[in-house]
Amino acid sequence: MRALKYFLPLFLLFSFNRAIAQNNIVVLQTDFGLKDGAVSAMKGVAMGVSPNVKLFDLTHEIPNYNIWEASYRLYQTINYWPKGTVFVSVVDPGVGTSRKSVVVKTKTGQFIVTPDNGTLTHVAEAFGIAEVREIDEAINRRKESGKSYTFHGRDVYVYTASRLAAGVITYEQVGKALPAKVVTIPYQHSVLEAGTLKGTIAILDIQYGNVWTDISDEMFAKLNVKFGDVLHLKIFNKGTKVYEGDVPYSKTFGDVAEGQPLAYLNSLLQLSFALNMGNFAETHKIGSGADWSVEVTKK
Amino acid sequence: MRALKYFLPLFLLFSFNRAIAQNNIVVLQTDFGLKDGAVSAMKGVAMGVSPNVKLFDLTHEIPNYNIWEASYRLYQTINYWPKGTVFVSVVDPGVGTSRKSVVVKTKTGQFIVTPDNGTLTHVAEAFGIAEVREIDEAINRRKESGKSYTFHGRDVYVYTASRLAAGVITYEQVGKALPAKVVTIPYQHSVLEAGTLKGTIAILDIQYGNVWTDISDEMFAKLNVKFGDVLHLKIFNKGTKVYEGDVPYSKTFGDVAEGQPLAYLNSLLQLSFALNMGNFAETHKIGSGADWSVEVTKK
Amino acid sequence: MRALKYFLPLFLLFSFNRAIAQNNIVVLQTDFGLKDGAVSAMKGVAMGVSPNVKLFDLTHEIPNYNIWEASYRLYQTINYWPKGTVFVSVVDPGVGTSRKSVVVKTKTGQFIVTPDNGTLTHVAEAFGIAEVREIDEAINRRKESGKSYTFHGRDVYVYTASRLAAGVITYEQVGKALPAKVVTIPYQHSVLEAGTLKGTIAILDIQYGNVWTDISDEMFAKLNVKFGDVLHLKIFNKGTKVYEGDVPYSKTFGDVAEGQPLAYLNSLLQLSFALNMGNFAETHKIGSGADWSVEVTKK
Repeated sequence: MRALKYFLPLFLLFSFNRAIAQNNIVVLQTDFGLKDGAVSAMKGVAMGVSPNVKLFDLTHEIPNYNIWEASYRLYQTINYWPKGTVFVSVVDPGVGTSRKSVVVKTKTGQFIVTPDNGTLTHVAEAFGIAEVREIDEAINRRKESGKSYTFHGRDVYVYTASRLAAGVITYEQVGKALPAKVVTIPYQHSVLEAGTLKGTIAILDIQYGNVWTDISDEMFAKLNVKFGDVLHLKIFNKGTKVYEGDVPYSKTFGDVAEGQPLAYLNSLLQLSFALNMGNFAETHKIGSGADWSVEVTKK
Repeated sequence: MRALKYFLPLFLLFSFNRAIAQNNIVVLQTDFGLKDGAVSAMKGVAMGVSPNVKLFDLTHEIPNYNIWEASYRLYQTINYWPKGTVFVSVVDPGVGTSRKSVVVKTKTGQFIVTPDNGTLTHVAEAFGIAEVREIDEAINRRKESGKSYTFHGRDVYVYTASRLAAGVITYEQVGKALPAKVVTIPYQHSVLEAGTLKGTIAILDIQYGNVWTDISDEMFAKLNVKFGDVLHLKIFNKGTKVYEGDVPYSKTFGDVAEGQPLAYLNSLLQLSFALNMGNFAETHKIGSGADWSVEVTKK
Repeated sequence: MRALKYFLPLFLLFSFNRAIAQNNIVVLQTDFGLKDGAVSAMKGVAMGVSPNVKLFDLTHEIPNYNIWEASYRLYQTINYWPKGTVFVSVVDPGVGTSRKSVVVKTKTGQFIVTPDNGTLTHVAEAFGIAEVREIDEAINRRKESGKSYTFHGRDVYVYTASRLAAGVITYEQVGKALPAKVVTIPYQHSVLEAGTLKGTIAILDIQYGNVWTDISDEMFAKLNVKFGDVLHLKIFNKGTKVYEGDVPYSKTFGDVAEGQPLAYLNSLLQLSFALNMGNFAETHKIGSGADWSVEVTKK
């Protein structure tokens, strides 16, 4: 009993740390790839800030300069991480130009460190931005990095992120507060018009070639489709039809024969299209982004 | 001295944790690739279960739906990890169908969380399966995931694995015990017949193009070959001869000239074939799996 | 107050650990790729040595057997990691031959475990080698690995590195001290001759196709170039001219139009060349290494 008493303060200390929003977790996303030392240099900087930081990767294979996809990948993953996690996204064609470097707090309790260049489009829309602060580089920049202008990911972003995650700085110490809005990329949102669902191909499930739209399960429910019903699907690139066909709405891929198309709700509960054991996107030359739209009707 | 006394319970606590089989380590294998957010979402779920979980990757580059290779990669690596490590393998063409989701305990003291679809073929044969439990999704499934049918890796497998690794659940709490046997993929095992060693090309050492058979060092010893002796090698695809040649049995790759073939025992002590500083598999168009067999004689 | 007193020894313990050079961090570099289980087996061995080891990757995508690039990647990253970090580099075309297995301590306070085959060329030159010790395999080799000759990365290098990082062995216990010099790859160093800067293309920034020379900011300063000034650039492969053109010296990529060339100081403050939003190396078929040289004059 007595010994326990002396451990009490230690437990309180832990509890206190837990009460702070940050949880020591930093998750990195870039378009750097993993063939050189850039990501490793970033991780070294984080370890230099605090050995308690836990580092993870979202992906480093964002196509070069593709802000849309960086935005989508954040949206796709951040809410599976504990509240207080600090994300860093460095897809930054404008490095060294006037785009702002910010740390936002989402309404779901996550932090994202990123250039404010459209990377927050999907997150802002789906989860909401609670606060925005601009990184004050007079404080939040590696001391030894004064002469390098081209690697903000290492010298500013991951340095700030790991200091925030480890509690070296508070969120307020990131820099001055800005209005709670961010730069967003315009695109066509999903609608139901006269029995036709219209939407955008938000992303390709690239490993399998599946086609994911921005049509949510709630929107899709308005078509009143049951498993086994057949949908009529058209896909357009900048308004030109690229694909047209019938696809059954299926609970599992195995519900259709090998190589056959199906419609399903993906892991984010959005209407998606695939070939069972095949590659829909490659077979039919389908891409993703604001230029790619779909029309879906029930047969 | 006195201060030390008060730390004793802390050390006991650590000892107690160590006595439990699980060691907080979770190792992930999938065919998801690293270009999207799927693996990261899995890791976020694990961190949400417990910040003490230590996450590692086996590989996420298993060719799509290739259960044979998933099976081989587990066999190739699990015993280099400490006893009590929890592996997750998600190569699952039948996601959403009736294949069972299981957690096995190997006779060597490892846990593997996987669909029971052949992924345990090599491990069952080489190390043995001590126990099998079917995951009870009523308990071991993320609370928020009820409507998603297609991402068991995130919603069931890594969730169960990290709970098991962190000691949130015991092995018994995974679900009900099944008979200690698993689904296996049939293939031709290595034999010595009338001076000819016959075997299967188990896998390619893909980065270098080396060809690894399932012929163990013990089986190979029956041919009575010494370093420098020459072997005669034939390779067949579904019974059709694809390669025939003489290869010296070598201690190191440098024992033959650049570009020349050699036979050697690989890091798993299995008979293997390579070109020094070259790519045997690419040069001679060799594949791996149950369709690829070899015949080896001593010259 | 009283409780605090009893925690003092705990803090002293932490301080004591910090006084030891090693910091539990191990960073791995190989040419193994991530498609098989080789890197994972190495990490398992490290976890078996000590659960306190923190494992990170530099890269596993060094082109097969490319010692020059392995050397460059170490040089590019090690100093962003805290002092006492232990690096492992396994790019080892001579595995099993007589090249020495060493652990060096750099003058900047890092450890590197590697075959002494040229991998330390850039680090030796840029940071200096303080001490060299040859790994004594009688002590520093996995007990179970006696018969395998071909996977020193797993059986010797990462095993020794994690023991050193975790403080299981001291640096002295690695093995006997050798003279403080290492094997280096000869190449042409940068010079200024009669107004012409001559240098080597040290590496490609492969993800973007940028061309990085070995010409430092100090060397470049001798040309007296200001942002906006135009440079005349020639690139040679084994003495044959491959590219000639005018490139403005720019503070950011955005200073030139899309697709246009620019000169800049990279994140290591070396003179580099790029196409804004394009791929200089691919467009003009440029490589890197000792065979690729540049000449730069001010217009």
